[in-house]
Amino acid sequence: MAILNRADAAPENASSPVAAATPLLGRPPLDADEFRRQGRQVVDFIADYYARIDDYPVRPDDVAPGFLTGKLPETAPSTAEPDELTAALRDVRELILPGITHWQSPRHFAHFSATASNVGALGEALAAGLNINPFTWAASPAATELEVVVTDWLGKALHLPEKLLFAGGGGGTLLGTSCEAMLCTIVAARDRKLAEIGEERMGDLVVYCSDQTHFSFQKAARIAGIRRGNYREIPTCRESGFALTAKALQAAVSADEAAGRVPLFLCATVGTTPTSAVDPLRELCAAVEGRDVWVHVDAAYAGAACVCPEFRHNIAGAEAVDSFSTNPHKWLLANMDCCALWVRQPTALVAALGTESDVILKDAAVRSDTGVVDYKDWQVALSRRFRALKLWLVLRCHGIDGLRAVVRSHVCMAAALERVVRADARFEVPVPRQFALVCFRLRAAAALPGEDKLPCGDDDVTTNNELNRRLLEAVNATGRAYMSSAVVGGMYVLRCAVGNSLTEERHVQEAWNVVQEQAAAILATAATTRTAEEHAVATTMAYPIPIYL
Amino acid sequence: MAILNRADAAPENASSPVAAATPLLGRPPLDADEFRRQGRQVVDFIADYYARIDDYPVRPDDVAPGFLTGKLPETAPSTAEPDELTAALRDVRELILPGITHWQSPRHFAHFSATASNVGALGEALAAGLNINPFTWAASPAATELEVVVTDWLGKALHLPEKLLFAGGGGGTLLGTSCEAMLCTIVAARDRKLAEIGEERMGDLVVYCSDQTHFSFQKAARIAGIRRGNYREIPTCRESGFALTAKALQAAVSADEAAGRVPLFLCATVGTTPTSAVDPLRELCAAVEGRDVWVHVDAAYAGAACVCPEFRHNIAGAEAVDSFSTNPHKWLLANMDCCALWVRQPTALVAALGTESDVILKDAAVRSDTGVVDYKDWQVALSRRFRALKLWLVLRCHGIDGLRAVVRSHVCMAAALERVVRADARFEVPVPRQFALVCFRLRAAAALPGEDKLPCGDDDVTTNNELNRRLLEAVNATGRAYMSSAVVGGMYVLRCAVGNSLTEERHVQEAWNVVQEQAAAILATAATTRTAEEHAVATTMAYPIPIYL
Repeated sequence: MAILNRADAAPENASSPVAAATPLLGRPPLDADEFRRQGRQVVDFIADYYARIDDYPVRPDDVAPGFLTGKLPETAPSTAEPDELTAALRDVRELILPGITHWQSPRHFAHFSATASNVGALGEALAAGLNINPFTWAASPAATELEVVVTDWLGKALHLPEKLLFAGGGGGTLLGTSCEAMLCTIVAARDRKLAEIGEERMGDLVVYCSDQTHFSFQKAARIAGIRRGNYREIPTCRESGFALTAKALQAAVSADEAAGRVPLFLCATVGTTPTSAVDPLRELCAAVEGRDVWVHVDAAYAGAACVCPEFRHNIAGAEAVDSFSTNPHKWLLANMDCCALWVRQPTALVAALGTESDVILKDAAVRSDTGVVDYKDWQVALSRRFRALKLWLVLRCHGIDGLRAVVRSHVCMAAALERVVRADARFEVPVPRQFALVCFRLRAAAALPGEDKLPCGDDDVTTNNELNRRLLEAVNATGRAYMSSAVVGGMYVLRCAVGNSLTEERHVQEAWNVVQEQAAAILATAATTRTAEEHAVATTMAYPIPIYL
Repeated sequence: MAILNRADAAPENASSPVAAATPLLGRPPLDADEFRRQGRQVVDFIADYYARIDDYPVRPDDVAPGFLTGKLPETAPSTAEPDELTAALRDVRELILPGITHWQSPRHFAHFSATASNVGALGEALAAGLNINPFTWAASPAATELEVVVTDWLGKALHLPEKLLFAGGGGGTLLGTSCEAMLCTIVAARDRKLAEIGEERMGDLVVYCSDQTHFSFQKAARIAGIRRGNYREIPTCRESGFALTAKALQAAVSADEAAGRVPLFLCATVGTTPTSAVDPLRELCAAVEGRDVWVHVDAAYAGAACVCPEFRHNIAGAEAVDSFSTNPHKWLLANMDCCALWVRQPTALVAALGTESDVILKDAAVRSDTGVVDYKDWQVALSRRFRALKLWLVLRCHGIDGLRAVVRSHVCMAAALERVVRADARFEVPVPRQFALVCFRLRAAAALPGEDKLPCGDDDVTTNNELNRRLLEAVNATGRAYMSSAVVGGMYVLRCAVGNSLTEERHVQEAWNVVQEQAAAILATAATTRTAEEHAVATTMAYPIPIYL
């Protein structure tokens, strides 16, 4: 496609355009009336999508790599056609939607939820419409101040220690992701430490986490230049619920100290990704007390639960941590992306990430010598979106009670699921449900024929893991439910994370039906000695227990 | 405010919610019909904002730190009121809008533009509505494939070397900001180098740029653990147009090599922030050839201009670079945020930023062993927004010709402004305009009384800088135009960056009128020996030259 012909044929000379009149834009790219018209098209499109989202298989069917690239032209169009948006939206509907994994589907139980809301999406839309870049206070004062307000609001709603809030001498900011929060705090801790012991000891710095910590932490540490060998992934075990123990941490730290290395940073997790395990903050902080180790809490998923008093024990001891992050885009109705990070000493962040040399910005920030926040110094990038608007809309329009209702409804559905899984002897729940995440698996014994079908001794781990892997693939292939998996303590488990805004009891029920159905089929294949009659019984057994009796 | 009373009074026990029915959500957070209604409210709000954006002072008036925090409650509401969105939008209008700097105002000439469009904003809205998280191909195949397609589209539209595109063995991705692009590429280069020479030599790695390079690069290098002393900011001068010269680079690199250090990374800029200077890519690449130095091009602003053939000479020599980034959110109608990064060797990025240990994701990405892209391995974070949708809508709905018209209209207005500035003897344009950025300042001599008013010899640099600083502040205080500043070669200059979608000739004309008006007032004060009569003449002279004759 010769997309450049028109302009190539009549090149203009950049050094002498003054004589010419300013070229007319054929179609003003920004236009109030046209925005009103096109905006309604997009709003209707999204509303229609929500209305029929249940019609799509959660994970797209029959999609092979290259399926979309093959359908699109190799170059962008050179000219726009009239009412191009209508045509583009048709393509979104016909080409793109059939190829996406529907994270907002009520049947999406994989990973962690991305709990969306009307006002979460519209807050993003509103921020995109204003399209400001509030990198300093002066670059948009209200945006900065709203972020200060809303991070304190959220911190108070979660009952975070006051010292993490602006109200208590700390402060919060809104970033994109947890990994960014980890990176910024590692760099703050690193530079504070190196200022004390000298840059040449960079290679001695050690960071700590458990073998359940999200890999984002390893990535953040690597990006920050922590040596690969100085990343301590401390083993956990089933007996401690896959939580990091103070004893194991202390042993690791002491060993490093004895070897002349410098313990720098601990990432504790409240709600690990594999099983939503909770690292005991109080004990872990005590284990490194007096050692100037920066303790960060990654509560990306489960932090949200602290809007409810009954979950706040999970962050007991947070008074002693240096920083804490959670993702309102995960479970608090704020659409992607939104990670709230609070730090006890904002000056440590600013010392590492601040920039002093930029006259252009200094000039604009001339009013900010009165203690106002310049958020560019709290993050990796200069530019930033107006994320506070979205979170403010969510808190304002739903209220704390509204957020509690969301969390509790998901936890309640997950608890019901856990109950029915436990009631089916073919399955086990190897780690107790935490929050709204249920991890389960087929027992190996379930694959044995006849009388041996009841739980009976040691599993053949490899075989059982393979069995469950096949089960997950079979479940997901139905398009009627979409789950993910984890391997903990050598066990492959299916993860069912309840948490989408559109998910109702019936969707969880159906997901369980699908699991039972597919399990029965897999077990039937596995039990080669089983008779056809037994198979029929097993299949019938696939729907024995309704979830919500 | 006792926000937590209701729920505190009736705490639930998380360990036994199964028996209870799932709590009902008072108001479903996501609802198709309600979204249709609320979406229209937000669309109308944005359209109304565009329609009257010109009524706001560009920079808010009378706004002191704390102005907004004082007006908002200290805690989030505990319960939502009926039709809370209407009330919230009223607060946005009455409390927030008067306190933001209006980046979309046609009178915003500060920093670089954030050229927005209807479809740019609506693309963000659409992505927020779908709210997917396409971190791997499998996590939403169409989103990944659209990103592959659209980065190749854009790369072709800019005439980037084919080896940077997927079509040529490289490939592009969409990140949030340039700093992120710099960070990811530095880390890729660093890890590639350390794999060769050993991690213990981390402290020997050196990065290079010019004294005009955006401070984001210094920040990125610092985050990546490059020693503060190993950041070489090579001086530029007015004679070379504030571009980095190959000679200076070669000298710096050779000196480091001689001292046993390891040259790692060069950040060349096409369109620097202070004056939009262009570093000569071909010569710089030649200067480090054979030394395994990763050359990155930061074309955050000016890269966009390469949609027009007449600007492509600015990236001549890009065939030899390792990576190239530009921000479609700056000048290509993609609303915040959108940074396109292309790399010649995606494997280097993936080696540094990839994650292998994550079973949860591996499982989901089971289909991606056929060469598909998992974009989580190209960036800092795991989670990511569906940015490709926005950029695809922009390219599709405006076409390459539409983007060219936008760039050319801004360049044309800037060229006209440059002409009238040059025609006013009180002013000078110390560096020739590049693209749509005009840097200018009052001559020091302009402040001298009587006959000495014509240009006459050396400026008193400090006095003149102070004079121009006052001029900028006076201009911005009018609310009728908003510009920024830079200091280059010791000279303080005002920066007028033309580039907003709503900016028309008349806005540039008025901005110039404001500058002349404020300059006259400042000069009148400065020239204490000037008589009242002369002052009157000077004031009249403030409007002598219409821009577009």
